[in-house]
Amino acid sequence: MTAFPTLDEARALDAADPLRDRRADFTLPEGVIYLDGNSLGALPRRTAGAVADLVTRQWGEHLIASWNMHGWIDAPARLGARIATLVGAASHEVIVADSTSANIFKLAVAACRARPGRRTILSEPGNFPTDLYVASGVAATVGVELRIAAPEALVDAIDDDTAVVLLTHVHYKSGHRHDMAAITVAAQARGALTLWDLSHSAGAVAVDLNGSNADLAVGCGYKYLNGGPGAPAFLFVAERHHGLLESPLSGWMGHAAPFAFDDAYAPAPGIRRFLCGTPPIVAMAALEAGIACFDDVAMADLEAKSAALCDLFIAGVESRCAGHGFTLITPRDAGRRGSHVSVAHDQAFPICQALIAHGVVGDFRAPDVLRMGFTPLYTRFEDVWRAVEILGDVMERRAWDDPQFRVRGAVT
Amino acid sequence: MTAFPTLDEARALDAADPLRDRRADFTLPEGVIYLDGNSLGALPRRTAGAVADLVTRQWGEHLIASWNMHGWIDAPARLGARIATLVGAASHEVIVADSTSANIFKLAVAACRARPGRRTILSEPGNFPTDLYVASGVAATVGVELRIAAPEALVDAIDDDTAVVLLTHVHYKSGHRHDMAAITVAAQARGALTLWDLSHSAGAVAVDLNGSNADLAVGCGYKYLNGGPGAPAFLFVAERHHGLLESPLSGWMGHAAPFAFDDAYAPAPGIRRFLCGTPPIVAMAALEAGIACFDDVAMADLEAKSAALCDLFIAGVESRCAGHGFTLITPRDAGRRGSHVSVAHDQAFPICQALIAHGVVGDFRAPDVLRMGFTPLYTRFEDVWRAVEILGDVMERRAWDDPQFRVRGAVT
Repeated sequence: MTAFPTLDEARALDAADPLRDRRADFTLPEGVIYLDGNSLGALPRRTAGAVADLVTRQWGEHLIASWNMHGWIDAPARLGARIATLVGAASHEVIVADSTSANIFKLAVAACRARPGRRTILSEPGNFPTDLYVASGVAATVGVELRIAAPEALVDAIDDDTAVVLLTHVHYKSGHRHDMAAITVAAQARGALTLWDLSHSAGAVAVDLNGSNADLAVGCGYKYLNGGPGAPAFLFVAERHHGLLESPLSGWMGHAAPFAFDDAYAPAPGIRRFLCGTPPIVAMAALEAGIACFDDVAMADLEAKSAALCDLFIAGVESRCAGHGFTLITPRDAGRRGSHVSVAHDQAFPICQALIAHGVVGDFRAPDVLRMGFTPLYTRFEDVWRAVEILGDVMERRAWDDPQFRVRGAVT
Repeated sequence: MTAFPTLDEARALDAADPLRDRRADFTLPEGVIYLDGNSLGALPRRTAGAVADLVTRQWGEHLIASWNMHGWIDAPARLGARIATLVGAASHEVIVADSTSANIFKLAVAACRARPGRRTILSEPGNFPTDLYVASGVAATVGVELRIAAPEALVDAIDDDTAVVLLTHVHYKSGHRHDMAAITVAAQARGALTLWDLSHSAGAVAVDLNGSNADLAVGCGYKYLNGGPGAPAFLFVAERHHGLLESPLSGWMGHAAPFAFDDAYAPAPGIRRFLCGTPPIVAMAALEAGIACFDDVAMADLEAKSAALCDLFIAGVESRCAGHGFTLITPRDAGRRGSHVSVAHDQAFPICQALIAHGVVGDFRAPDVLRMGFTPLYTRFEDVWRAVEILGDVMERRAWDDPQFRVRGAVT
C-alpha cells in the first residue's frame, strides 16, 4: 500500500505535472470533481466556438459550397490522421465514421470474410456489452459462432477455427488492460485476426497499434477524446489489410468515386472504403476541437499521469477509506490497467449517488461497482485527494444510507 | 405551356402564400438564390442557439447527467415521433439513427431475412447511388441478388422470388415520384416487402406511409428537414412488423435494457431495436431545431407550394429560356414529381457554374443535368422568377462559355 499524501503534497504533484496547463483547455463546472471522463469527456473551451463557426458561418453562409470550401469532405480522413498519432497508427490507417458499434460490425464482418472456413469469433465474458451484442449480430450475419473465454483462458482458446479475436483493450468495468502485443502474436500464430476496441484506452494511456502489429481496431470519440455526447467513432485497419478487407456497409462515401454517381459499387482503395453514409459534420467539428486538446501532448506524459492519478486514488481508498468494505477490482500494476479505477462494494449504488450529491461525479456499474475515471488532461492530483476525502466522509457518516440515494434511473 | 408571370405577379403569389412567414425562420445569405435545399437544407434561425445550449449548458455544465436531465437518451424516439407526422406514420413507427445508408442496410437485411427463400432485392437503374451500393452489400451479406428493372417495368418485375422492393420515392436526378401505394400493393400481392427511401420527398411533398400501407422506409435529415450537413437519418417500420424484423446491427442502444449491461443481446420490443450505437447528440440538437420549422405547417400547403414553385420554374425555362437547348426531364404532372426540377443540357456543367457565379445556387448531376430544388418553407416565387431571369441572361449572353466554369471539383 502506497502512503496517501497530504493536500499540500497533492498540490505539489500538480505543480510538478508537465500536463498541468492542459486543464485550462476545458470548461469544468464549479464545485464539481468530475471523475467520469471515461464515460463522457468534459467540454473543451474551444468547442463552442468551433461548432458555432461551423453552424453559423460555414453552413449558414456558404451552404453546400462548404463541402469543399471548408474541407467537410476531408473531415473523416483528417480527423482519422490526427487520432492515428494517439494510437500508434499511420495517418492513412485511421478514419472517423459512424459509431463504435457500427464500426465493430463493419470490421468483424470483414475479418470473418477474410478468414473463410473459420467458424468462431472469440471474445471474453463481460466485455463491453455493445461489443458482444454486435458480435452476436455479426455471427448471425456471416454464419459463425461467438465464443466466450475467460481472460486467463483467452490465449489458449485461440485455435485454427478462430476467425477474429474481439477484445476491448481496457475493460470498461474492471479497468484491466490486455497485453495487446502478446494476444496479437498468439492470434496471428493461429492465423486469426485481432480487433481491438480502444474506447477506454485511446487518449488516456499509450496505445501502440503498429508496435503491437495489431490488425484492426475501433474506438470512441466521446470519452477520452472529448468529442461530445455520441461523437463519431474511429476505426483502424493496418495497411497490410488495405484492399483485402471490404465493408459490408458499402455506402456511397466509401466508393472509389462517390461523386461519379455510378450504379455499380467500387470500394475506395484505402481506408476510405470503411466510410458508409454522409459524415455528421456538426459532430465532426466538435470532435476535431476535442482532439485538438492533445496537440503537443506527449503520450508518455499522459500514461505516466494516468498511472499516478490511479495510484493516488487506490492509496486513498486503502488508507482513508480502510475498513469500509471496498474491494479493489482494478489491477495494481499500472501497465495492466487503463485510466479508471473500480472498487466493489455491496452498497455501491447509493454510495455513488451520495458522492454525486457531494460534488464527486463517478459512476456505478451493476451489480456492485463504483468506477472513477481519471482523465490525464484535466484531472488534478488535488481533485483525487478531495474525492478520497469526500468518499471517506460519506462512508464514516454513512451519508449514503439515505432513501433518496436508492432511487434507480438510467445511468450511463 | 403555362404562361410565365411578371415580377409583380410573382410577388403577388408570395403575398398570397400561406407559408410566406416561414422564410423568416431561416438565415439565408444576402445576394444568393439558394435552390439546393434538396442537397443541403438552409440554416434555421433557431439552430445556432439550440446547438450552443446543448454544447455549453447541457454538455459543459451538466455533463453525464444530461442523458436524463436533458432528455438525450430519448432524442432518437422524440425526433422520430416528430418526423412521423411529416411522413404519414404513427409516432412509435419512426426513429432517428445513423445515416440513410446504414439504415437501408439494417432494414434491407431484416427484410430479406423476413422473406427466407426469396432470392432478389429489386430496385431501379439510376436509383440514388448509395441505395444501390448498400443493396449490393446487403445482397452479398444475406446471399441474394440485386435485380434492376426500369421504372416502367418495375411492377411486372416483382415476382415470387422478390424479398424486398427498394426504391427512392422521389428520384434524386429526374425528380420522378413513384406511386407508393400502387407499387406497395403490387409488391405485397407477390409477398414482397417495400423499402422506401424518402430522402428527396420527406419535408417537401406529402408522404403517406400508412395510407400507402408501406412496410419500411428510411430518409435523410439534412435535405428538406434542415438538420445540418450529415444530420442523422430516420427509419420507419410499420407497426405490424414490430417484433418480427431484427436489425443485423445489434448495438447496445437497440437492446431491451441497454443499461443492464447483460452479456446476451435481447432486442427492444418496438422501433428502438433499430438503434445501434450511442446517438450523436450535438447533431441531434441541430436536427431537432430543423424539424421544428415544420411546426404548424399543413402538409397540404407544403405540397401545393412545391407544385406551384416547380410549375413556375418549368414555365420560365420554356418561355424565357426557349430555344437555348434545355430538355425537361422532370414530370410535368405535380403528383408524379418531388420538389426539384431537372433539365438536361449538353453544357449543363458550365451553365451551373455560371449560375452560381451569378448568385443562383443549384447543382449539376452527371452527365448533363441541371437540378434546381424548391424548398416550400423558404423559397419564394420571386426567387424562382429571378433565377429564371438570370438563367435566361446567362444563356443569351453565353456567359457560361468561359473557361473558368469548366473546372471540375467535387460537387455534392
